[in-house]
Amino acid sequence: MVTIQEMIERIKPLDQKAMEEAQRRLDSLTKPPGSLGRLEEMAKQAAGITGEVTPDLSRKAVMVMAGDHGVCEEGVSAFPPEVTPQMVLNFLGGGAAVNVLARQASADVVCVDIGVNAELEHPGLEQRKIRRGTGNIARGPAMTRAEAEAAVRVGFELVAERAAQGYRVFATGEMGIGNTTPSSAIMVALTGISPDQAVGRGTGIDEARRLHKVDVVRRALEINAPDPADALDVLAKLGGLEIAGLVGVILGAAAHRCLVVVDGFISSAAALIAVRLAPQAAAYMVGSHMSMEQGHALLVEAAGLKPVLHMDMRLGEGTGAVLAFHFIDAAQLIMKEMATFESAGVSGKE
Amino acid sequence: MVTIQEMIERIKPLDQKAMEEAQRRLDSLTKPPGSLGRLEEMAKQAAGITGEVTPDLSRKAVMVMAGDHGVCEEGVSAFPPEVTPQMVLNFLGGGAAVNVLARQASADVVCVDIGVNAELEHPGLEQRKIRRGTGNIARGPAMTRAEAEAAVRVGFELVAERAAQGYRVFATGEMGIGNTTPSSAIMVALTGISPDQAVGRGTGIDEARRLHKVDVVRRALEINAPDPADALDVLAKLGGLEIAGLVGVILGAAAHRCLVVVDGFISSAAALIAVRLAPQAAAYMVGSHMSMEQGHALLVEAAGLKPVLHMDMRLGEGTGAVLAFHFIDAAQLIMKEMATFESAGVSGKE
Repeated sequence: MVTIQEMIERIKPLDQKAMEEAQRRLDSLTKPPGSLGRLEEMAKQAAGITGEVTPDLSRKAVMVMAGDHGVCEEGVSAFPPEVTPQMVLNFLGGGAAVNVLARQASADVVCVDIGVNAELEHPGLEQRKIRRGTGNIARGPAMTRAEAEAAVRVGFELVAERAAQGYRVFATGEMGIGNTTPSSAIMVALTGISPDQAVGRGTGIDEARRLHKVDVVRRALEINAPDPADALDVLAKLGGLEIAGLVGVILGAAAHRCLVVVDGFISSAAALIAVRLAPQAAAYMVGSHMSMEQGHALLVEAAGLKPVLHMDMRLGEGTGAVLAFHFIDAAQLIMKEMATFESAGVSGKE
Repeated sequence: MVTIQEMIERIKPLDQKAMEEAQRRLDSLTKPPGSLGRLEEMAKQAAGITGEVTPDLSRKAVMVMAGDHGVCEEGVSAFPPEVTPQMVLNFLGGGAAVNVLARQASADVVCVDIGVNAELEHPGLEQRKIRRGTGNIARGPAMTRAEAEAAVRVGFELVAERAAQGYRVFATGEMGIGNTTPSSAIMVALTGISPDQAVGRGTGIDEARRLHKVDVVRRALEINAPDPADALDVLAKLGGLEIAGLVGVILGAAAHRCLVVVDGFISSAAALIAVRLAPQAAAYMVGSHMSMEQGHALLVEAAGLKPVLHMDMRLGEGTGAVLAFHFIDAAQLIMKEMATFESAGVSGKE
């Protein structure tokens, strides 16, 4: 069984030679140098990740990790916990937002039960349950260190299997009623900002309930006293199982030289854990959207993400990341199909 | 021949009943209300524009207007003026960035010679030349009021023809070496900000040349003294022929109940003219990207646009607008394919 240390050691720097070659190609195309902005950066990043100037990035998957949260008994969410398994079945039936947007982007939805508090049976479900929901972080740890490591391994191995099948692009997705609370707590633990700055309205609570959630996060930090220098300790004590699974998805993508598009608030908390464990994983991440969730702007900065979409979204599931798949494709098409100054007979800069 | 007054009178308010029905549908889908943010707004806007809750928006076109600028003789651009006709031929050959991105989005590129300073022949070209380039705005007016009105009519009529063929979504695109200078001048005239705030680096000039461009814009305002209360006067005295054509595209889309996605800096200058002529046209516009061009943030605010993409792009051609076509499609797929709380057996908000 791969350990977290081994996962980290498998992550190598990007291929500088391929990136330089990609830059030369970009500069030969009929446009002012750099004028396609982030599309050009994505093309270059993809070259550095894969080692190819025009890689085949057609196989894409969004990894939707589902888990429940003991902290829901504190009343932190606008939705009841039974929505987690109900939504898992909705993903498997193809009717959720992430399914619709993944179909548009020709991407697969991989639905993983990593910690749902219900018995789920479905031929399309990846059954990798570590435990039925986390402990209530307002009263004790979310999970043991061994459980956190096992959940990270789930994400890593699911990506490894698909990388072996030719998938080169992954997105992080999640479902777990209550999971903005552990995400906010992780952010507080790792960045030192105040719970009031980190806690937002999730799927739609009012200000009174938000203040209650701030108090819950404060208590979670006090009672668990996670070590901010030990990201796995923070993850085990405050995290969700789906957040741990996404840490594994990010480490797995980086270790297998794949792109990983990071979704919104919860995914960014996973990204922050991942880069604290393995700073070199940051080079494999692509920012997608700036969530409406309060604190997300600070969180993306801490995780080193640069979101390109400002859509005022706050759904999760991987919906923002899957929308950004179109830009990964666009960047490749630019590299493959655009005319050069020479081929089109266009004059360059004076 | 349709006058500008007649164009304006044809623009009606959105269909409130269709928008209310779209809102009911959105709120029945398996997601927290409003959590898909701008995608939900786009679905509602499309319903209000077309009068249908799930309209057929499959036929899309980006209208690329090309024109030259007398002000180039002041040395305001990093590229020589012959690049305008060269790029028109590149558009017609399918090798420019906008061609690649339009193919990805299943959209047509309509290439229009509205004022190129060269004789161009190509079976795919819409030949609607008003004159060979504008006058040098640093020394006198860009064009006459009659020429400006004729150029607006070109855009309006090209959209009218395509609306009759079933196109329901348009994007604004342009090519014209030197055209950030007239766009900045229009912005100064209509918003009252200083030339120094409005003038950026275009396709890539240095700070010394930018300061020269600031001076050119200042002279253009002084010598032409456009009436800020008369947007057509501003357009004629400072504008480009392609900018006038795009004003017509926007008015034409609004008059024919179509969506019009507005691209970057130059397109936003056209949008500002359009909404000053016809404030009710704003409801038909969709913001696309926030350009790297200095002053664009102020310009989109003045034009009432809300860009969703922050890609650091500064190419024009309609490239940012065409990228946003994916979101127009995504919004429709959400309306058509997502499960409802009832159909999926998912519990609602507590």
